[in-house]
Amino acid sequence: MRRVAVVGIGITRFGRASDRTLQELAFEAGREALRDAGVEPGEVQFVAVGNVAGWSSESLPAVVVSEYLGLDSPGLLRVEAACASGSAAIKIAHDAVASGAADIAMALGVERMNESPTPNVVELIGRAGNYFWEFENFGLTFPGYYALYATAYMDAYGATEEDIARVAVKNHYYGSLNPKAQFQRKVTLEEVLSSRYIAWPLKLLECSPITDGAAAVVLASEEVARKLTDSPVWIRAIGHASGTANLSKRPDFLGLEAAYRAARAAYKKAGIDHDRPYKQIDVATVHDCFSIAEILAYEDLGFARRGEGYMLLREDQTYIGGLIPVNLDGGLKAKGHPIGATGVGMAVEAVKQLTRRAENGRQADIRNGVALTHNVGGTGHYAYVTIYSID
Amino acid sequence: MRRVAVVGIGITRFGRASDRTLQELAFEAGREALRDAGVEPGEVQFVAVGNVAGWSSESLPAVVVSEYLGLDSPGLLRVEAACASGSAAIKIAHDAVASGAADIAMALGVERMNESPTPNVVELIGRAGNYFWEFENFGLTFPGYYALYATAYMDAYGATEEDIARVAVKNHYYGSLNPKAQFQRKVTLEEVLSSRYIAWPLKLLECSPITDGAAAVVLASEEVARKLTDSPVWIRAIGHASGTANLSKRPDFLGLEAAYRAARAAYKKAGIDHDRPYKQIDVATVHDCFSIAEILAYEDLGFARRGEGYMLLREDQTYIGGLIPVNLDGGLKAKGHPIGATGVGMAVEAVKQLTRRAENGRQADIRNGVALTHNVGGTGHYAYVTIYSID
Repeated sequence: MRRVAVVGIGITRFGRASDRTLQELAFEAGREALRDAGVEPGEVQFVAVGNVAGWSSESLPAVVVSEYLGLDSPGLLRVEAACASGSAAIKIAHDAVASGAADIAMALGVERMNESPTPNVVELIGRAGNYFWEFENFGLTFPGYYALYATAYMDAYGATEEDIARVAVKNHYYGSLNPKAQFQRKVTLEEVLSSRYIAWPLKLLECSPITDGAAAVVLASEEVARKLTDSPVWIRAIGHASGTANLSKRPDFLGLEAAYRAARAAYKKAGIDHDRPYKQIDVATVHDCFSIAEILAYEDLGFARRGEGYMLLREDQTYIGGLIPVNLDGGLKAKGHPIGATGVGMAVEAVKQLTRRAENGRQADIRNGVALTHNVGGTGHYAYVTIYSID
Repeated sequence: MRRVAVVGIGITRFGRASDRTLQELAFEAGREALRDAGVEPGEVQFVAVGNVAGWSSESLPAVVVSEYLGLDSPGLLRVEAACASGSAAIKIAHDAVASGAADIAMALGVERMNESPTPNVVELIGRAGNYFWEFENFGLTFPGYYALYATAYMDAYGATEEDIARVAVKNHYYGSLNPKAQFQRKVTLEEVLSSRYIAWPLKLLECSPITDGAAAVVLASEEVARKLTDSPVWIRAIGHASGTANLSKRPDFLGLEAAYRAARAAYKKAGIDHDRPYKQIDVATVHDCFSIAEILAYEDLGFARRGEGYMLLREDQTYIGGLIPVNLDGGLKAKGHPIGATGVGMAVEAVKQLTRRAENGRQADIRNGVALTHNVGGTGHYAYVTIYSID
């Protein structure tokens, strides 16, 4: 397998982009990534566009995105793995370069959730669970799904609503430092706790928002990367797994099995100790679509033992200076969650951190030169865990 | 790059499957491919599902498909490249194996077009052209798009309606021999010519139908393939390209530039002479979504010179025994066109032909052991040309 490096990154501000079309958002991120890489559009040989769409007016978004960017008719496709679509796009672009099929490839994620038609985007996303039994018959949508996990977790381990709410406080703090974040303001624990319930015990300030945005990475083979940059960031390992769409088949609601399996696979490939990954990983971005999801991620990724994830938050261990800083870009909670773009946005953040380009005091201490991204689709229907390193 | 082989194939009958769900169709094809390969579901490490969906009740079809097949939580994603989605799925699965990321991967295409909601599937597909200018403002749908090509072609080269209609006669003839085809009956030239106009000069019997169906291939690395089978079929080259979504930007309507470029790329990788590819290729399946499209394909692929494609039909050169037999499975026209599955169905046909498993006297003479598939998305928005060989 050829080594693959990220040689360029680009990202729009996440938020409500009522003044820009899907393709304009994609153009903004894609052009920034090409310029960052020093690569001409015509040099890109393969493009994977992460986009969940369904509700987009453009039913072939990859084509218009490619055309807007002036890419010279490369191989092209759109990939969907629910909210992990961005990481799936990176996997495809990675394999194209690793196999030798392409020397330069792009993964671009874009979503314009605010153009959702009737009835509303929460319902549309809700259909992405088990459609027939869970959505159509019981009306479950994603806040409800994750509320089931939060309830089970609190019951099993004695965590409180306060414990879970701390995720939002941390991620809003870092979001306040990130000029690309949707919500650039801090919130107090009291504010989170007093915001209205969406699905008990999850409150408004614990739910990721509806977001428009795009992010892009340019990938290159080792030979090309060495010519383009002195600071390539390598994709050291990609772990992936999928899980059942029917939550009634899951053994418990205390972790996402697909995420656990994806992490094990990635750690094995990267030579990372699953019992103490924080000894080797400097910084992580994890899929905090709801506050509880970040705590489950700590445990699925081995940052904490089962039932002890929330303790990391009590001790500020996932802030800079702690055991392992998590979501220094604000996470899905504060940075925003434009579903098809989220995984690519995570890659952009991993590269920013490893190349010490994070703004405003939200830069992690880079000792080992290793970053992790954890991107989940559905409620663990899909999981992609990717390890980035500077050597 | 590691060599990649097709080691198993499966396909449903194409047609109207009102008695089966999307996942049941996928199961039927996927299980057949696994059995053909002698591979257990748990051995599949990566799965790419080609599905255009949009109108499907299952908004995460890849998850339910994987679960129905009992696949053991592999890496998973859905890929969309319009009507070339199946070939894009093969490209992804190929790269996963070629790179070393997986030893066994599956590409599965599935579409249940008859579950299309309001208003109707022709309109939904019509949105896949340039949405704003062409569909919304001018009401163009795909029969109209290809009628523009047919009109331009007839004007430029003097081909007649009869010349173009011969595509349907040939493909219905071979469809009549294929037990998996949607339409298993011959039609005469007179029947085609007297069927009603859909978009002048294209008539009903020149348009591919609305189809439900699924197809699957199991891919393996050379090492694994050698253990599994004595008759692997190698993916020798994949060529891909994309084109503008806005037809008004195209220089002419006499060929699909993306298909031409994809062919050139595939021929270059496979060492095939673009001026006389029929000297090396024994059999081809091409994207005859409308009769004219097959004639354009002849020229884009170098089977005939520009403006002479229709002459191949006058001389029966694309029947068995001619210069290069094309669409011996009935093509999109008679076999059917379940859009996300079509490209995988083409791969199934290429493997059947190369391993001499085609039924009922529709087996090509295999001399060089090389087959080609040509799969187009949109009107040349996407193109994938893939070369298969027995050594």
